[in-house]
Amino acid sequence: MTLIILAHPTFDESLANKTIVEELQKSNLAIEIRNLHELYPDFQIASQTEQEVLLRHNTVVFQYPFYWYNMPAILKQWFDVVFEQHFAFGSKGDKLKGKNFLASFTVGGKEKDYTTLEKHHFHVYEFCKNLEQTAYFAQMNFVEPIYTYRTSLADGFTKDEIRNVAKEHSKKLINRLIEMNLYNYPQ
Amino acid sequence: MTLIILAHPTFDESLANKTIVEELQKSNLAIEIRNLHELYPDFQIASQTEQEVLLRHNTVVFQYPFYWYNMPAILKQWFDVVFEQHFAFGSKGDKLKGKNFLASFTVGGKEKDYTTLEKHHFHVYEFCKNLEQTAYFAQMNFVEPIYTYRTSLADGFTKDEIRNVAKEHSKKLINRLIEMNLYNYPQ
Repeated sequence: MTLIILAHPTFDESLANKTIVEELQKSNLAIEIRNLHELYPDFQIASQTEQEVLLRHNTVVFQYPFYWYNMPAILKQWFDVVFEQHFAFGSKGDKLKGKNFLASFTVGGKEKDYTTLEKHHFHVYEFCKNLEQTAYFAQMNFVEPIYTYRTSLADGFTKDEIRNVAKEHSKKLINRLIEMNLYNYPQ
Repeated sequence: MTLIILAHPTFDESLANKTIVEELQKSNLAIEIRNLHELYPDFQIASQTEQEVLLRHNTVVFQYPFYWYNMPAILKQWFDVVFEQHFAFGSKGDKLKGKNFLASFTVGGKEKDYTTLEKHHFHVYEFCKNLEQTAYFAQMNFVEPIYTYRTSLADGFTKDEIRNVAKEHSKKLINRLIEMNLYNYPQ
């Protein structure tokens, strides 16, 4: 089973993230979605509940918009309180060992803007090292993140354009999840 | 004047961050400290209040412990709600232009562990690109972060050792701030 940790402060008004989640729901994949802002509007995340949920799954997908070159705050809070010593790391902290860690996120702007001489100066993958090392430290399998550009109205893209790139994103994500299930990834 | 944005979920029990803040308070620097967890225990950060505070200062220091190779969640929430379009970025969003952006944080483990073949695999500066680009996008001056290793009891360091490295950290931070004031940095 695949767990979707959804972190979007205004999910109901979102275009890209909502489309991606809807496409996941329409697929035949066995998924469980946890909408963090809906569950924890005051950010008081129940660590034990979340840990119990994690134990039921082999794959965890983190679905969110890229905010300030990073994850939204509530997802960081989720890591801060759920990935505890003796659970996610430390001498007895091997409860997540072998589970797949897959970040799936939407980037507002264009790919070209994420290059050295353009306005975001860095490639998106350069901002993903904290994710990668978080997975390693919890002995999880870091799966290459899936991310899609051009998902923000503020950056000048239309609703249709955004829904279309979000659908392409969903296809990639769903195929990756099917592949991982089929081949029992990791081997 | 220097603004200290303090982000520590258990500041009163902290050793390193508490020592650093106490040393800053003992210095002759004109500082204003905002303890985010004390001000906003439910993470509902008042963006307008925080924006007004920012306008009073030339330098912003972000003081926090390094959690999961990143800032604590409440500081991310602060960026997510305070660095709004038309304030921090966008065609009219130049309110932070020219202000200094200085991250000051404590790292639990040893420097050696933050190398490719050791348990944290990356150098700390590799995890700082989101900070750097956040500063650039808000037209702020990104000052090289100040960070100190060996600040966690869980990593086997003693209270005295931690207080000592925190005092060294404070000296560096205070000197950097004095220098910046003296030379009216940036020129």
